[in-house]
Amino acid sequence: MRIRVQKYGGTSVADLECMQKVREKVLKALDMGYKVVVVLSAMSGETNRLIEMAGRWSKRPDLCEMDVLLATGEQTSIALFSMLLKECGVKARSMLGFQVPIQTDKSFGKARILDIDADKLKAVLDKYDVLVVAGFQGCDSEKRITTLGRGGSDTSAVALAAALNAEDCEIYTDVAGVYTTDPGVCPQARKITKIAYEEMLEMASMGAKVLQIRSVEFAKKYNVPIHVRSTFSDGPGTLVVQEDKSMESAMVSGVAYDKDQARITLVEVFDEPGVAAMIFEPISRANIVVDMIVQNPSREGKTDMTFTVPKGNTEETLKILKRIKSDIGASGILHDADVAKVSVIGVGMRNHSGVAAIAFSALKNENINIMIISTSEIKISCLIEEKYTELAVRTLHEAFGLDK
Amino acid sequence: MRIRVQKYGGTSVADLECMQKVREKVLKALDMGYKVVVVLSAMSGETNRLIEMAGRWSKRPDLCEMDVLLATGEQTSIALFSMLLKECGVKARSMLGFQVPIQTDKSFGKARILDIDADKLKAVLDKYDVLVVAGFQGCDSEKRITTLGRGGSDTSAVALAAALNAEDCEIYTDVAGVYTTDPGVCPQARKITKIAYEEMLEMASMGAKVLQIRSVEFAKKYNVPIHVRSTFSDGPGTLVVQEDKSMESAMVSGVAYDKDQARITLVEVFDEPGVAAMIFEPISRANIVVDMIVQNPSREGKTDMTFTVPKGNTEETLKILKRIKSDIGASGILHDADVAKVSVIGVGMRNHSGVAAIAFSALKNENINIMIISTSEIKISCLIEEKYTELAVRTLHEAFGLDK
Repeated sequence: MRIRVQKYGGTSVADLECMQKVREKVLKALDMGYKVVVVLSAMSGETNRLIEMAGRWSKRPDLCEMDVLLATGEQTSIALFSMLLKECGVKARSMLGFQVPIQTDKSFGKARILDIDADKLKAVLDKYDVLVVAGFQGCDSEKRITTLGRGGSDTSAVALAAALNAEDCEIYTDVAGVYTTDPGVCPQARKITKIAYEEMLEMASMGAKVLQIRSVEFAKKYNVPIHVRSTFSDGPGTLVVQEDKSMESAMVSGVAYDKDQARITLVEVFDEPGVAAMIFEPISRANIVVDMIVQNPSREGKTDMTFTVPKGNTEETLKILKRIKSDIGASGILHDADVAKVSVIGVGMRNHSGVAAIAFSALKNENINIMIISTSEIKISCLIEEKYTELAVRTLHEAFGLDK
Repeated sequence: MRIRVQKYGGTSVADLECMQKVREKVLKALDMGYKVVVVLSAMSGETNRLIEMAGRWSKRPDLCEMDVLLATGEQTSIALFSMLLKECGVKARSMLGFQVPIQTDKSFGKARILDIDADKLKAVLDKYDVLVVAGFQGCDSEKRITTLGRGGSDTSAVALAAALNAEDCEIYTDVAGVYTTDPGVCPQARKITKIAYEEMLEMASMGAKVLQIRSVEFAKKYNVPIHVRSTFSDGPGTLVVQEDKSMESAMVSGVAYDKDQARITLVEVFDEPGVAAMIFEPISRANIVVDMIVQNPSREGKTDMTFTVPKGNTEETLKILKRIKSDIGASGILHDADVAKVSVIGVGMRNHSGVAAIAFSALKNENINIMIISTSEIKISCLIEEKYTELAVRTLHEAFGLDK
């Protein structure tokens, strides 16, 4: 049995006309001899409508009941789309999270998939040619409805593809694929033909919002090839796959940026064991995600500690720091919300020296000052003044020849 | 454990304000020491919106997927209402049809409840003070979602009350109870304090649209006392219970009418065994519900056969009859859509003679001609010209002293 998983996002199932386009794609896959598992999101705008509604009913809507409410969005999509398939004689049926079942943990609102009963699902696939599965939702061990968080339908699709050992997992969206950078910022951005899971993870976490990060982690773990492509055109999109030789020849695959960063500097804190923990433990307990962290070499037993947090968490972070200020011996707390992070990403970086040098000199040529640098094996990130973001992205994009 | 089941219809959960009123009623029952099972319909207008939507997606929407779609309406209601209860600290949770589970047959769109696992449900009630259950929906043996047909939430509520051995089942609606007749037609109509299941069945089937017929059948079978009352006031409503002595003292409890009737007469058909079957079998196969049937005594081996069908089925019925006309020897087929049925109902009828005489003479006094008469143990129905419906209702209402 050749199985293909196709996932369509909210804009792809926004109305009857869109769903008819989706039907054509599904029929084409059937013609090619596949059994198709179609994973759908809620019609675009629906999830926001429901969240807004819940906000009127309750200031802090119960998480568990929120999932019951939100799950109706995908339920509506799959019922309507199944009708559309049956209308033209396709042997199809809808499946809700609890029917598959897609077993998750009990983290309502951001549940993780624990298990999908592949044998049971394959038995259903024996009887039907298309299964239309509700994305974004699952159920816990007590059959209560859970949802997987924003973009969770991507993870549903990849998990189903992994469980069913599908040939591939197509993620249909309203863009043509993954780009070397944001085309809105840099008109020279090109569609990437093939990208490694690791690169995609770095791209996704920094605002190339095509795929939910967790879906890529899942795909990497189970080696599911993902094909990101457009619902509204027929061309090939971007393959997200395991790293291969061809990828290493390119130094850099893409440039990402993130404007949702605020910089915080603790001036002259004690340079002693345990001080870092004293700073970051209370921040983490407040559910604030710290991104870049830099500590300068110590002078006279004191050091400056700089890190970034999401802009919206600045006030709360400062409040926490003021409480511990004297314990850590800081002489001052500085902060700056007008910053942004730009990053160059590529698995090829491992084999090429000089990537950092090219990046830094490119920024220097434009007189862009670098406040913080942080690096991983396949990524170099620089914190800069926010107003230079677009210029920095275009400069780096050109410096690494991504426009060619 | 004292359990009370409360069902609220679409107008009672139409918006936040309505749901807040409902919450007050639930809190009051909690104060009285009950555990409460709240059964909700979809917010008013929602089911029609979904049906209309499906109609755009498919000319003949798949019944099975239609149920998946429609079930979202109640799911939305119970999620929102549970949030509202939790907002004020009530130990509450929502339950969908498949979670209870409410096991039904596979008649999608008009499923019948087969079983409710009371032990499991009571175990959940041990942990919560209020269960907010989705009305109208259940699931079949393969866990596919089913719905119970229009007004099905009434049946959900009564079935839950029966399974849980609840003290009573309150059906909250936008009217104050069951009336002796339609107050829109007869301003003298009074609210009935107590009515027998059998009477309610006759009232409901003839357009006193307060309760779904099947819910009354269910209540009768399991002896569940139903209390029909208003969400928007605090007064007592109408008790629907087993017949008792007090009811027999009244000759007639109510007057009902039904304008959705068309009369069809087959002139001079053979008066032979098997002829009636030849007429009504094909009509029933076409899913047309025949109501009153009258056959006049035969003359010279021929007889006239008159019956009524819903107005919308007139054309189809005539087409069927034309096909079999020569086989049954009919010399003509007459029809008249300008007719209505008025009925007087009461368990007291059994012990009182002369009910028919009073009814007929009351109609005669107003010069209303009776075309067909049909009677049951607790009901007398007359087919009359449609234009006299309101006059007939008021006349009968007065003749039996129902305004006092």
